[in-house]
Amino acid sequence: MLKVAIIGATGVVGQEFIVALDKHPWFKVEAIAASERSAGKKYLDALRDSSTGIMKWHQRTPIPDYARDMVVKSVNEIDAKDYDLIFTAVESDDARIIEPKLAEHTPVISTAAAFRYEQDVPILIPGVNDEHAELLDVQRKRRGWKGFIAPLPNCTTTGLAITLKPIMDEFGIERVIMTSLQAVSGAGRSPGVAALDIFDNIIPFIPKEEEKVQVEAKKILGRLVDGRIDDARFRVSCTCTRVPVIDGHTECAFVETSKGCEPDDVKRAMLNYSKHVSIKDLPSAPEDYIIVHDDPSRPQPRLDRDVNDGMSTIVGRIRKDTAFENGVKYVLLSHNEKMGSAKGAVLLAEMLKVKELL
Amino acid sequence: MLKVAIIGATGVVGQEFIVALDKHPWFKVEAIAASERSAGKKYLDALRDSSTGIMKWHQRTPIPDYARDMVVKSVNEIDAKDYDLIFTAVESDDARIIEPKLAEHTPVISTAAAFRYEQDVPILIPGVNDEHAELLDVQRKRRGWKGFIAPLPNCTTTGLAITLKPIMDEFGIERVIMTSLQAVSGAGRSPGVAALDIFDNIIPFIPKEEEKVQVEAKKILGRLVDGRIDDARFRVSCTCTRVPVIDGHTECAFVETSKGCEPDDVKRAMLNYSKHVSIKDLPSAPEDYIIVHDDPSRPQPRLDRDVNDGMSTIVGRIRKDTAFENGVKYVLLSHNEKMGSAKGAVLLAEMLKVKELL
Amino acid sequence: MLKVAIIGATGVVGQEFIVALDKHPWFKVEAIAASERSAGKKYLDALRDSSTGIMKWHQRTPIPDYARDMVVKSVNEIDAKDYDLIFTAVESDDARIIEPKLAEHTPVISTAAAFRYEQDVPILIPGVNDEHAELLDVQRKRRGWKGFIAPLPNCTTTGLAITLKPIMDEFGIERVIMTSLQAVSGAGRSPGVAALDIFDNIIPFIPKEEEKVQVEAKKILGRLVDGRIDDARFRVSCTCTRVPVIDGHTECAFVETSKGCEPDDVKRAMLNYSKHVSIKDLPSAPEDYIIVHDDPSRPQPRLDRDVNDGMSTIVGRIRKDTAFENGVKYVLLSHNEKMGSAKGAVLLAEMLKVKELL
Amino acid sequence: MLKVAIIGATGVVGQEFIVALDKHPWFKVEAIAASERSAGKKYLDALRDSSTGIMKWHQRTPIPDYARDMVVKSVNEIDAKDYDLIFTAVESDDARIIEPKLAEHTPVISTAAAFRYEQDVPILIPGVNDEHAELLDVQRKRRGWKGFIAPLPNCTTTGLAITLKPIMDEFGIERVIMTSLQAVSGAGRSPGVAALDIFDNIIPFIPKEEEKVQVEAKKILGRLVDGRIDDARFRVSCTCTRVPVIDGHTECAFVETSKGCEPDDVKRAMLNYSKHVSIKDLPSAPEDYIIVHDDPSRPQPRLDRDVNDGMSTIVGRIRKDTAFENGVKYVLLSHNEKMGSAKGAVLLAEMLKVKELL
Repeated sequence: MLKVAIIGATGVVGQEFIVALDKHPWFKVEAIAASERSAGKKYLDALRDSSTGIMKWHQRTPIPDYARDMVVKSVNEIDAKDYDLIFTAVESDDARIIEPKLAEHTPVISTAAAFRYEQDVPILIPGVNDEHAELLDVQRKRRGWKGFIAPLPNCTTTGLAITLKPIMDEFGIERVIMTSLQAVSGAGRSPGVAALDIFDNIIPFIPKEEEKVQVEAKKILGRLVDGRIDDARFRVSCTCTRVPVIDGHTECAFVETSKGCEPDDVKRAMLNYSKHVSIKDLPSAPEDYIIVHDDPSRPQPRLDRDVNDGMSTIVGRIRKDTAFENGVKYVLLSHNEKMGSAKGAVLLAEMLKVKELL
Repeated sequence: MLKVAIIGATGVVGQEFIVALDKHPWFKVEAIAASERSAGKKYLDALRDSSTGIMKWHQRTPIPDYARDMVVKSVNEIDAKDYDLIFTAVESDDARIIEPKLAEHTPVISTAAAFRYEQDVPILIPGVNDEHAELLDVQRKRRGWKGFIAPLPNCTTTGLAITLKPIMDEFGIERVIMTSLQAVSGAGRSPGVAALDIFDNIIPFIPKEEEKVQVEAKKILGRLVDGRIDDARFRVSCTCTRVPVIDGHTECAFVETSKGCEPDDVKRAMLNYSKHVSIKDLPSAPEDYIIVHDDPSRPQPRLDRDVNDGMSTIVGRIRKDTAFENGVKYVLLSHNEKMGSAKGAVLLAEMLKVKELL
Repeated sequence: MLKVAIIGATGVVGQEFIVALDKHPWFKVEAIAASERSAGKKYLDALRDSSTGIMKWHQRTPIPDYARDMVVKSVNEIDAKDYDLIFTAVESDDARIIEPKLAEHTPVISTAAAFRYEQDVPILIPGVNDEHAELLDVQRKRRGWKGFIAPLPNCTTTGLAITLKPIMDEFGIERVIMTSLQAVSGAGRSPGVAALDIFDNIIPFIPKEEEKVQVEAKKILGRLVDGRIDDARFRVSCTCTRVPVIDGHTECAFVETSKGCEPDDVKRAMLNYSKHVSIKDLPSAPEDYIIVHDDPSRPQPRLDRDVNDGMSTIVGRIRKDTAFENGVKYVLLSHNEKMGSAKGAVLLAEMLKVKELL
Repeated sequence: MLKVAIIGATGVVGQEFIVALDKHPWFKVEAIAASERSAGKKYLDALRDSSTGIMKWHQRTPIPDYARDMVVKSVNEIDAKDYDLIFTAVESDDARIIEPKLAEHTPVISTAAAFRYEQDVPILIPGVNDEHAELLDVQRKRRGWKGFIAPLPNCTTTGLAITLKPIMDEFGIERVIMTSLQAVSGAGRSPGVAALDIFDNIIPFIPKEEEKVQVEAKKILGRLVDGRIDDARFRVSCTCTRVPVIDGHTECAFVETSKGCEPDDVKRAMLNYSKHVSIKDLPSAPEDYIIVHDDPSRPQPRLDRDVNDGMSTIVGRIRKDTAFENGVKYVLLSHNEKMGSAKGAVLLAEMLKVKELL
């Protein structure tokens, strides 16, 4: 069993790590850390608002037994050398300070954007660009670290990149145009999206989100050549909106392909890719990497997000695109709090372990 | 004052007509018609559920005084010759039967799709393609009618066409890709969208909607040549979704232009067009035909839909598009129950009256 | 295995029966019936809208394998003698006609209100008033039937009666005042609550609901004396509202007790009752019949309704009531689609089987 | 014109004051104050998030012209002697420090709870207990202030007290039991209620709210005797819940009366009281103080909250109560952001001015 620490364990994403690592066959949580305010308290007590008695636990399953009485450390008390792997769930500004210190000694898997765009940092989606993991060795050497920083992509990039991968491989991609309808849980909880702002409403702007998705999609689908990533060549344009949905990002994609393709070809390509995806035997991998619906009213976030515990990417409405000579359009759903967050990070850790990078 | 009849007056759209025509300076409602079940009752009583006492009036303003005690007729009791103008708010299947009979004698302005796609039927948006109104004369002659049928576009087409018009005029359009986030009121109320289906959810499919928008946008922005409409040449591709918003359709548009254009150019083109729009002095015209926001979080349906009583098209987030060499992307909001429905129909009637077609 | 038929199998409640009986250890679904429109089709096909391809399956779990290819019968094709037990999920008006015919031969467990208020018909909640089941024998004899009709209570009554039972037993009840905040799924789906009516809204009226709860609570908590039920003597007053929640009825109860009681006494009484509840070993019984929260922000429908698959009644905020000399107030949550509907009906069938009434 | 300052002008309630005082015939806003962060900026700029460009203006009407370019002061820069009246919209902890300093010189009307429960502080609802205003003179003398502090009640108390007043006057009140379904705007915006917490959910707990309503209702409906308030004698018990509604508190009240009364008597008493209410000619008073609906599905927050700009209390479902020998139950709606907040405070100021207390 690898010894694991979770940094930021009381926040929403940290709580997801607590759940995702419950009874994990390979990883054992040995330490949980949070802000000074929580340090020294039992996890259970750190989550309780002392003035009202309200528990700040936001998962649908109860707090796993292993975590309830663990004593929360402050981040500074964590000695990276004591752990084989560290998961971080902190804001980007904090990540920029904390993560390099930890990575000197130990591999860090991060949900923050802080290091995603540096040249020696891959953005890994297990099953999509596993071969980019080699860049972690470049990073190690270049920075003189024993560990590394491996960040997840933005949760909106995840489902898009997963569905583009089989299309790119079989038909080539010229252009991607995508409008996202993103769930409020993607904005976290401190303070996250206020009910007053999003009830009966759409907010058609998420600061920096579109730029992230546009850059990340091309990096993830690029090729590792001579120790650096050569971005994919297609053009990509996004509009990211916030919608009154709790969990699950819906994305409407329009893809101009290099070769002609019929909707059935695309469906077949996705299902074939899903069937043979590299990570299919890992403990956190879903039974289906991609699910394709024929019912034209799917995917729907409330009905589909929890399938396979939120680890599948769900696709529907594959149609010929009418804006391009060669093209396809479809709708996808990806669970931003599962595959797009902590549980996706655990799946990444599993992939890295199999590659003997941990 | 022109004498006006409303067909389908008890339904949601019919109720909007009742409101839109209250105290109208040119039009006087002389008859309201609905199904046999309502016929013979006072309007007020026709709206009351007799078993529970619940009033089926869905507008935010009270029932206008003029309508409360009007006796509802059955559709068959309406003699078209008694009216100068008839507004219809019925389902497409009923429209196909009812409207031609009425149009034999009297101009009919329709919210149904039944006749939109026939060659001698223009789809008019006042301020966008007023010159297509000439096709009504062709229709009259060809069909041997004294009146005509002038249908509104689908409510999702309206805002898109209004915002494309100044872009097409100044920069030319090659491609339009649009994802809509449509309000539940667009689906009506019989039964409309069930709360169970749309709470905390997105339904990424509205039967036939995408095809309508794709066809209508090109017809509306086409040119009238030799008594027929030559469709606009650009390609268009849409994905239409239903979102948990009460009123106001949000649309995310990506437009490849023929000439290069900066976001500020597009903003200027829209505002300039808005300032000089043909219909600006009509009684139901909004103060601003198009409003452009600089605040990147706008337009938002809950905050913006009721501006100018829902008759303005609200635009925001005008940015350079990154998928095309020349292109622009933006978000628009159009009130599907106002400019996109009954009040838009009244504005159309005003435009036709000024053109002496009524 | 008892042979079971489900009447009304394509509706929402019928679908819940399909799920609740999947892999049941005692009951085997041998027939499913619905309207003429569905008759003769495979269950899967009966649920598919033929014009759009949309599946009308509203459960979060997929259609159980056993049901997918079963051929739906029309109600008239069902010969009651072929089954040991029939579950009905039809509207009250239909129930009034269908159920007596079936009950001539076979026990019928009904979710409809049609027969609830007849003198020889008990309203059974397994675990609360099991002894009222004896009235079914009275009914059998009086009506000359081989079977009987055993209706569930209204879904709003269920949680209230369950929580009142231990209070009544230990402290006596003088008055009950209850305001319900009911989920939209309680109104079904044909057409159910329109999104337009309930978004960002409360509807403070559910026709006939308050009267039902008031009558049923007293009947259920009454005593069976000499072959008839002597209603409980307390007074009860309700206000029932519809709120924008998908599943789970929340009820705010204020109870004047006969004896003094502290909140902790009430908590203890509820937990003790729950621990020893009669039905605790039945296949569909939850691990906890009643759960009591100390966190004052609970129960919350979204967080608590799915605990124990919706079969537990969740209580919180037990406080001393300030309106009465002796009294207690609390909030309860009951899953209207599970314990309050089909799965509660299956639990009732299990209880009746153990009592050898099937 | 009285010279007015608004403290806390950039927050939600402060913004409501900005709107409520636009073009006011008696009051002129001469200063607006907020935190140090905003001080020195124009109001418009203080509301703009400098990193994203998003405007933090939460009202449906645009920022009034008079306020756009006013320079925001810090609270410490406000010299109370320069103003005739000060409205405060700050958190209770801040109010406890700021308000007494201001009240030394100038009358303060406060939306905070800080001083509500002190013996020489009345909780005034204009139209309900205007005579309690005399206690302000007692306060002045006792504290040696030139001004005074006059706090509004909690927004949940307002509608309840308004509807209880005519019942108490005509029939006497023994007990009041009330369950509230409160809108999210009542929790403000810093951070207010997170969308994640309240979507598809009920939170059956609002810290301290029930105690406030219970105490305030009895104080407001008490009698001023010998310079102190003798609380009303009835018992009152509340359960306060948060529901997914934007604006408008719905309350379900059950009232045991001293004398027998029929629903029609209660309706008549309310309408009669409304017709003759003391404040009916004040500038901010609504056309109807109380509106009583016969349609049993009303009041509904989305349909009714904006009637008379949110200044009316809307009542419906007046029925005989079945829990008490003499009693009535009903549902009321009060706009927590209008009559229950800033605009109610302006109405209070108008009443105090007429009484020559300003």
